[in-house]
Amino acid sequence: MILNEADKNLIQNSIRDVHDFPKEGIVFKDITTLLNNKEAFKTLMNHLEERYKSYNLDYICGIDSRGFIFGAALADRLGIGFVPVRKKGKLPSTTVCEKYELEYGYDEVEIHLDAFPKKKPNVLLIDDLIATGGTATAASKLIKKIDANLLEACFILNLTFLNGVKKVEEHTKVYAVLDI
Amino acid sequence: MILNEADKNLIQNSIRDVHDFPKEGIVFKDITTLLNNKEAFKTLMNHLEERYKSYNLDYICGIDSRGFIFGAALADRLGIGFVPVRKKGKLPSTTVCEKYELEYGYDEVEIHLDAFPKKKPNVLLIDDLIATGGTATAASKLIKKIDANLLEACFILNLTFLNGVKKVEEHTKVYAVLDI
Repeated sequence: MILNEADKNLIQNSIRDVHDFPKEGIVFKDITTLLNNKEAFKTLMNHLEERYKSYNLDYICGIDSRGFIFGAALADRLGIGFVPVRKKGKLPSTTVCEKYELEYGYDEVEIHLDAFPKKKPNVLLIDDLIATGGTATAASKLIKKIDANLLEACFILNLTFLNGVKKVEEHTKVYAVLDI
Repeated sequence: MILNEADKNLIQNSIRDVHDFPKEGIVFKDITTLLNNKEAFKTLMNHLEERYKSYNLDYICGIDSRGFIFGAALADRLGIGFVPVRKKGKLPSTTVCEKYELEYGYDEVEIHLDAFPKKKPNVLLIDDLIATGGTATAASKLIKKIDANLLEACFILNLTFLNGVKKVEEHTKVYAVLDI
């Protein structure tokens, strides 16, 4: 299930480039202009529903916090549960934790140890964007650590020049709606 | 459109109390156990869709970051746009900002100045929980500042003993799915 050209253009044109955010020299891909465009948002969600309705998924995992937006809407469309992967210290109950490297230093993401009430569930991981793939790799490891079948990681945007997909593909299949 | 007793019990029973989070003496209302329960999540979303489908809304605003979960799913159900209200420094383009008081010190939330492409839109604000109402009050002010009709603020849980609703009602109508 690949996106047709007209729908791809509608979605792609709804995403705004913001220069010098979060720091000088960076061109930030702003998806808020996709979300507040009801045609673009609906078209994207139709595509995701179409692609994933046959995957027999039990849960969608969304990465804190833009992954929550697409992940929750998709879980609701598919009539399945939603599970957040969060930055360290945000989840209230017992968690498992995974570190990943940043340019300087490291960061950590967590998932609840009992995040999946169903045993050996089929899970899709989703985030808005894949850059170097650090967060998505850590999130993929977490999902597998608590004994789920991670079927795929899905991103709306893939910044291809940063090669993040290759890193995540060591842990699961990857699908990106748009390559940039 | 008020929730019937059976649905209310299903949703209420799916929310978990976590003691001593984020600090000793606090009982944290954990909605991750609602989200990973497909029946409870679907029942809640059905109720929200039923309530808001006649409001003639143009956008749903969700508060960072659990408000994104319910807000994005509801916007998708209603076929309208979603707009995030975020903690300071997260939104890439030009924003308006509103300070609010915490127990010690203050915090700030922001919205994009051009968050609503449609002029004078009808907007619903949503978050998972209302406690003292500080964040929701600040978010309500932001929405009105950029010239939108804020029709209502909606919360899944209302911690009634903290009286946050009274504060938000100075700015808009309030609906809470569950009072606790």
